[in-house]
Amino acid sequence: MTHDRPLPTGFRYAGIVSHLRSEPDRRDLAVIISDRPAAAAGVFTQNQVCAAPVRVSRARLPRADARAVVICSGNANACTGEQGMKDAERMAELVAKELGCAPDQVLVASTGVIGRPLPMPILEAGIPKAVQAAKPGADAFDDAAHAILTTDTRIKVSSAALAGYSVVGFAKGAAMIGPNMATMLGFLMTDAPVPADELRAILKPACEATFNCISVEGHTSTNDTVFLLANGDGPPLKGNELAAFRIAVETVTADLAKQIAADAEGANHLVTLKVEGCRTDAEARTIAKEVAESALVKTAVFGADPNWGRVVSAAGYAGVPFDEADLSLTMGNFLLYDKGRPLPFDAKAASAYLKDNRDVTFTLTFTLGQGSCTFYTCDLTTEYVTLNADYTT
Amino acid sequence: MTHDRPLPTGFRYAGIVSHLRSEPDRRDLAVIISDRPAAAAGVFTQNQVCAAPVRVSRARLPRADARAVVICSGNANACTGEQGMKDAERMAELVAKELGCAPDQVLVASTGVIGRPLPMPILEAGIPKAVQAAKPGADAFDDAAHAILTTDTRIKVSSAALAGYSVVGFAKGAAMIGPNMATMLGFLMTDAPVPADELRAILKPACEATFNCISVEGHTSTNDTVFLLANGDGPPLKGNELAAFRIAVETVTADLAKQIAADAEGANHLVTLKVEGCRTDAEARTIAKEVAESALVKTAVFGADPNWGRVVSAAGYAGVPFDEADLSLTMGNFLLYDKGRPLPFDAKAASAYLKDNRDVTFTLTFTLGQGSCTFYTCDLTTEYVTLNADYTT
Repeated sequence: MTHDRPLPTGFRYAGIVSHLRSEPDRRDLAVIISDRPAAAAGVFTQNQVCAAPVRVSRARLPRADARAVVICSGNANACTGEQGMKDAERMAELVAKELGCAPDQVLVASTGVIGRPLPMPILEAGIPKAVQAAKPGADAFDDAAHAILTTDTRIKVSSAALAGYSVVGFAKGAAMIGPNMATMLGFLMTDAPVPADELRAILKPACEATFNCISVEGHTSTNDTVFLLANGDGPPLKGNELAAFRIAVETVTADLAKQIAADAEGANHLVTLKVEGCRTDAEARTIAKEVAESALVKTAVFGADPNWGRVVSAAGYAGVPFDEADLSLTMGNFLLYDKGRPLPFDAKAASAYLKDNRDVTFTLTFTLGQGSCTFYTCDLTTEYVTLNADYTT
Repeated sequence: MTHDRPLPTGFRYAGIVSHLRSEPDRRDLAVIISDRPAAAAGVFTQNQVCAAPVRVSRARLPRADARAVVICSGNANACTGEQGMKDAERMAELVAKELGCAPDQVLVASTGVIGRPLPMPILEAGIPKAVQAAKPGADAFDDAAHAILTTDTRIKVSSAALAGYSVVGFAKGAAMIGPNMATMLGFLMTDAPVPADELRAILKPACEATFNCISVEGHTSTNDTVFLLANGDGPPLKGNELAAFRIAVETVTADLAKQIAADAEGANHLVTLKVEGCRTDAEARTIAKEVAESALVKTAVFGADPNWGRVVSAAGYAGVPFDEADLSLTMGNFLLYDKGRPLPFDAKAASAYLKDNRDVTFTLTFTLGQGSCTFYTCDLTTEYVTLNADYTT
């Protein structure tokens, strides 16, 4: 998948089968290793209930000398009390021991079921193996991208190549995807030389505009984590090259975010919501999020039902003041609602638009200002319900 | 259903088959008539996009001389522009003509599909018939309760009898049920003599504590309406009888609210969420609402999966600050999470609790204060998705 893309130099990856998961051949333990100390920044869940690896990693960032990230899937190590904290710290320690670095140079992330203690004997055996297996190159990178998945059906990878360096990333999503942030893990690596404070200043707004503009069901996870590591292997950034770097980071996060929404659990459709003409970007995002999280809008898309009243009414309860005459709604190329008036439309053709396209777009145009937002969500399907009705038991 | 309950005197009801709906024998048009001018108050949706009947009725309330309410189901008369306003006013006018009163003594409500013009020829013929058919008594009351239903599977009626007078009500719900208010219509009648301003002061907090504490999917409707009519046929209220009246109104709204949550579209479970020990009632309600609207919590209940991590994590992203050690969670009699620590529990027995009971209770206990809230929701089932995937087309 990434074989034709330049990877940043100086990073090694592994994704191994540690048997954390019951499926015999499933990769479930990943490491990312930087050969030299890398500047690192992170963005985390805003949930009051956050997982042990989030607490451990948050306390270690930003920093100038990160050496590795270790990630396990299948168990979130969330709501696991004091033992969970010890286990997350131990995961980092096991990597540090192999690399000969300090434990706090290692970052940790986990995803999976909440509330079960980590099976530490498996990780005690697996983590040294993963570190020893780590290699540069696209195959190892893809292995790591595989090892972090939960109910995702495919890996999410993206890259941007610039003069002398590149930015790459991989991520996982699938469900418990609500903004602030999506229930997701994302890992970005670059060989550009960018200090940690600068990384953080770039990563936070990039996440805000991308990972925080996707929603599957609005449930903010306990484990959301995005890391950005910059090892400085590349040439110094001069002039407006830092601006180009910023754009590259946002391009990669946006691409990963869209892949997450498109591969949401049980989803048949990727729904793009464009909200335009609001007083501010923040108001546009508030409206987009409310529409994106309406079960009635999402079931209508699943059923190819051009039930535009649900979209308009969801916009109406977002808490942003407007008059009906301020709002128009377009679905694909169908103008359905024009400044407060419903228009006659070809219901069969509109339904066919939803049925025949996997990617569908709703545009809500207000007459209030210049604020806008693009938000991604998916439809709500019977398969989503079935998948989530029996996850732990 | 209400045959053994005393109805307030001086009210007549009808629920007729006007053929607004395609099902040949389905009642779809209701009237409530007060023989003498009644004090009346209303509470309405907080959606910015609100239906024409909401606008028309809101402008007419509170008032001292209401004579009737007319309600149609199958068409919401929402997002219907200027024509919708004219049609809602015309519905009232048709009733007023029959009764020989002023049009603004008549209130209007509608529920059904959004964005389609009302089929006025049907209502021009039907409304006079409904007014002529109106009768006192439980059979006519039940007919009216039937005529306002949409995807509800049964009528929702409730009553409270006090010394010399009574309070009765009927309501509809089913879906597009999110607080502020539930997507619902509710009509309360009493023969107690209570002035309109007092009615409003009683109705608003009663709705806040009941209809605004239920959620099916959090989608606030364009049409939510609750009316309370007091015709004064009964004896004057003396001493603390007004306080008793207030409690009677809240009892009836609470009973109707619970019936709505229990009969939500596709629901297999009524889920009661008790949130206790918060700093304020408002914070308890915020947390309850977030848990109630988590698709992951609701699918877990559907699947009889005691996935308590989803409940705890939903509480964590409600925006109310707390530490994990402040929170304990009980499901039925199972203490699953004790002040931030997961407890071992019998997963089979916990799953059986969810499987074998239609009514299930989660109690979230915080250590922060005395604030509490009881909130009702339902599970999210494959049937909900199927029902809502093909509603208009």
